[in-house]
Amino acid sequence: MRATTIHGPYDVRLSEVPDPKIDGPTDAVVRVVASCICGSDLWPYRGENKITPGSRIGHEFVGIVEAVGADVRTVKPGDFVICPFVVSDGTCPHCLAGYQSACQNLVGLGSSRADGGQGEYVKLPYADGTLVATPELPDDSLVPSLLTLSDVMGTGWHAARAARVKQGDTVVVVGDGAVGLCGVLAASRMGAARVVAMSRHEPRQKLALEFGATDIISERGDAGRDAVLELTGGVGADAVLECVGTGQAMTTAFDVARAGATVGFVGVPHGVDVPIRTMFSRNVALAGGMAPTRAYIPELMADVLAGEINPGLVFDSQLPLAEVAEGYKAMHERRAIKVLLRP
Amino acid sequence: MRATTIHGPYDVRLSEVPDPKIDGPTDAVVRVVASCICGSDLWPYRGENKITPGSRIGHEFVGIVEAVGADVRTVKPGDFVICPFVVSDGTCPHCLAGYQSACQNLVGLGSSRADGGQGEYVKLPYADGTLVATPELPDDSLVPSLLTLSDVMGTGWHAARAARVKQGDTVVVVGDGAVGLCGVLAASRMGAARVVAMSRHEPRQKLALEFGATDIISERGDAGRDAVLELTGGVGADAVLECVGTGQAMTTAFDVARAGATVGFVGVPHGVDVPIRTMFSRNVALAGGMAPTRAYIPELMADVLAGEINPGLVFDSQLPLAEVAEGYKAMHERRAIKVLLRP
Repeated sequence: MRATTIHGPYDVRLSEVPDPKIDGPTDAVVRVVASCICGSDLWPYRGENKITPGSRIGHEFVGIVEAVGADVRTVKPGDFVICPFVVSDGTCPHCLAGYQSACQNLVGLGSSRADGGQGEYVKLPYADGTLVATPELPDDSLVPSLLTLSDVMGTGWHAARAARVKQGDTVVVVGDGAVGLCGVLAASRMGAARVVAMSRHEPRQKLALEFGATDIISERGDAGRDAVLELTGGVGADAVLECVGTGQAMTTAFDVARAGATVGFVGVPHGVDVPIRTMFSRNVALAGGMAPTRAYIPELMADVLAGEINPGLVFDSQLPLAEVAEGYKAMHERRAIKVLLRP
Repeated sequence: MRATTIHGPYDVRLSEVPDPKIDGPTDAVVRVVASCICGSDLWPYRGENKITPGSRIGHEFVGIVEAVGADVRTVKPGDFVICPFVVSDGTCPHCLAGYQSACQNLVGLGSSRADGGQGEYVKLPYADGTLVATPELPDDSLVPSLLTLSDVMGTGWHAARAARVKQGDTVVVVGDGAVGLCGVLAASRMGAARVVAMSRHEPRQKLALEFGATDIISERGDAGRDAVLELTGGVGADAVLECVGTGQAMTTAFDVARAGATVGFVGVPHGVDVPIRTMFSRNVALAGGMAPTRAYIPELMADVLAGEINPGLVFDSQLPLAEVAEGYKAMHERRAIKVLLRP
């Protein structure tokens, strides 16, 4: 079969790799219907994370179950399944508490124990603890939205949950990548009265508005903070979603949070110093982390299937898997928000 | 009148100062019935915080209202009142949201606008936004417990609230000062099934057990962490109260928190680096800060008056105000957990 491999900075290829097969009783092999490229895939792509040349990449996909091991109970061949961006056993104390991304037996996709998502097939362990099947085969038009539940929509949802967004809140979303945009959708879906998207890219602003943003702030840094404070009568936001992971984004997030607010963060932290004295003096909390998207798939899947949310709009580019290298290039150059790949 | 003043490291004195009087319509003058020395008073005492020689000190007291300004509505001369450790206007958006310690017009006790608590009288602005009167004059035996609502009991309560302690939880309390001990009491009162006090001082261990601790861990650092993990089957605590404010205490707090837990912190941070990568990978949140004790006084006062809680046990020393210097010395040398002063 063919799967995406990474060989060095700016060098991803579609390569011939061995066909997957069931090895253990909890394994599943899934035929990929759609996968996509994540903002976090760009870290190794840009050479900012260490890689092993030739290793698999990609951690978001949906597909049809091809085969399962003897002990698998909740999915069967022919099922359409959504796969969270990490594999979890579903039985350890952290999984049982709904924090599957901290599973005691966590397995990464694209590791030695599970294939990467950007390929024709994916074999993974712990099928029951990981995959979620739709009640029936979904219409193809729903595939993009279901695919976002693998990562970006679940991650945006997690940011809003971590920030404790509630009915009537004023929410600020820092970051206009796919996760930030899904954060706007999540905050809106949770009943926020005002959702302020900080974005300076016109197509992303437009999508933010479509996802329920009530205000757009295109300024950054101190000017961005001042704009939020002006919007909120000098008080600040009830909840802030930090969907970038940089020091500047975190600073802005704390700057616009009102006393007693929570900053929900989901961007992988790179060079972030947490302003502990500000947290102390203003009682601003910091919560979040690697999203347990597995926990949110059932609820969000129901919303997608009912047509209540359409997070698949974050895909502004669709390519055949054979053009995966162009997909990375387009996202790296910010020509695309998020690229969907069809094998 | 006489009030405590600080003149330099290890130099506090009881000095003659001008009598207070009502200047503004929201002022109150309170005759102090009891005050006390706070762990945070030791920072300037030890010369670790900058001071103005001769300035007033002390921010915890209870007393009888002597006089009020024309606009004061909720307290009247003769009332017994509890004063939170900061003065808040009670009307700004942060006060209305229950974060009085972030009041837009915050006034510190012992500042140019409000007297310090360790004196015979205290004049302060914003009487309605700050003071809480008991329904009737309390029995003198309840004075120590009511005094703790000024700061330490409210602060321990805040740590537990921030850490989201709930019925049945396993809670670890880092720090065995008066605040940590009150944190033990708070977690127990909130229904925690297991309250683990990290303490290596025998009298404090004893008080922790009296306050509801189910387990005592006397080890610190890695050994302390290992002991908690052993107690919790390798999983960690559902909630952690960080009641010290040092880097080591914060490290221990994160080390013993399970995935999805919250570290509630109330110690003024000194040299704390927040482990953002750990927070991310394990979804451990950090919440808390300067406690809005004003918000908790009504509920905790009812508990004290009903005999449900007895936080006044944290006072293991009582001195006349004239011996305030000895009180500081005893706390600095850790001969006393907390010193109560009677004018």
